Amino acid sequence: MNKPRKPATAFSAVVFDAYGTLFDVHSVATLAETLFPGRGDALSQLWRQKQLEYSWLRAMSRRYKPFWEITRDALRFSCARLGLALNAEREASLMNQYASLSAFPENLQALRELKAAGLPLGILTNGNRDMIDVAVRSAGMTGLFDHLLSSDTVQTFKTMDTIYDLAPKAFGCPAREILFVSSNCWDAIGSRWYGFTSFWINRGGLPLDQLDTEPDHTGRVLTDVVALVRG
Amino acid sequence: MNKPRKPATAFSAVVFDAYGTLFDVHSVATLAETLFPGRGDALSQLWRQKQLEYSWLRAMSRRYKPFWEITRDALRFSCARLGLALNAEREASLMNQYASLSAFPENLQALRELKAAGLPLGILTNGNRDMIDVAVRSAGMTGLFDHLLSSDTVQTFKTMDTIYDLAPKAFGCPAREILFVSSNCWDAIGSRWYGFTSFWINRGGLPLDQLDTEPDHTGRVLTDVVALVRG
Repeated sequence: MNKPRKPATAFSAVVFDAYGTLFDVHSVATLAETLFPGRGDALSQLWRQKQLEYSWLRAMSRRYKPFWEITRDALRFSCARLGLALNAEREASLMNQYASLSAFPENLQALRELKAAGLPLGILTNGNRDMIDVAVRSAGMTGLFDHLLSSDTVQTFKTMDTIYDLAPKAFGCPAREILFVSSNCWDAIGSRWYGFTSFWINRGGLPLDQLDTEPDHTGRVLTDVVALVRG
Repeated sequence: MNKPRKPATAFSAVVFDAYGTLFDVHSVATLAETLFPGRGDALSQLWRQKQLEYSWLRAMSRRYKPFWEITRDALRFSCARLGLALNAEREASLMNQYASLSAFPENLQALRELKAAGLPLGILTNGNRDMIDVAVRSAGMTGLFDHLLSSDTVQTFKTMDTIYDLAPKAFGCPAREILFVSSNCWDAIGSRWYGFTSFWINRGGLPLDQLDTEPDHTGRVLTDVVALVRG
């Protein structure tokens, strides 16, 4: 513990995706299963799929709407599609669950170690600012990040250049000096296309998306990012 | 039959999406089920989802690749994700099935009636030109369309403005005078956002996507488009 740490010289900053990367959305699936026994998995999968789909369509067609509202739209569609009765009470409890996610167990320690190594940290998320402020507080991550970068500043979503642009601007360095960490393969690839050095946290052991590009680095948990940065 | 037809004055042209709208992709699902018994549905659904996802990500990040290749990429990912053994022979037979789709039974007659009513017709598709030429021939639709408009001209995909732009340019009229017909709800909405008059062929009786916009018209089959145009 007293051994002096070698400074992490390879990167000027580490920037994280939020949902699924820092914040564990599993509790939402658990609640979905409680509310709709036997259909929780189907609901949480379709909900996530439509949430992303709506963000991409709105990004392409310049029809921005806060991610929180898109999340609710996707929930409503998914329940209608699956024939699940979503009343106001169930909707509120699922959305509230989304607002108060916990961190993956190893994340807090990993973030503290990165910060202790002198690395500026940030979040770059599709979530709107209110949404991400609540999530950071709720996960006990207050004070760990130098920049919380959100879609509402630029009114678009990943993988558009204009949202990724936020990080090099905020940290004042070229994108390739930023390690961009995401558990979403498409985001890890999109961020590499953009110019970041990218790290895919492949928690689920999923196959690589077939997009003719690999993330620069891959691991299973946030601790693997610490290992890379320390060299 | 000898009654003189009232000319369709409300629209200057009718433009169709291709896959799922004109061409029935059901035969692909049937083959998938034959090759992977019990998993055909899961495969064809994920395949379609990833095909669209890859087109959207590539559109947003300006990483165009012909839709035919994206379709193959999506198939490979989907089999890997579902743990299905896709060898070269199975891949070739699934892709060949995609290349030689049949038309929905009512479509040929509906298209002929629209053409007989004096309306210029077109296809506007994510598919690359080679792909759509083969599909039109294979479905017996040769000679019915004034314009086959394809993603490869503009190197991007729906719902980007630049691909929808192809239709007003080709037909020389404002977008609102073009009736844009798609069985994909997101495309019917995206085309309305763009400025077309849009018609959603909701074959599956699906709920409307929650995107704060409704298609201008909705029906179940292509014959409903003929009824609208005739007034």
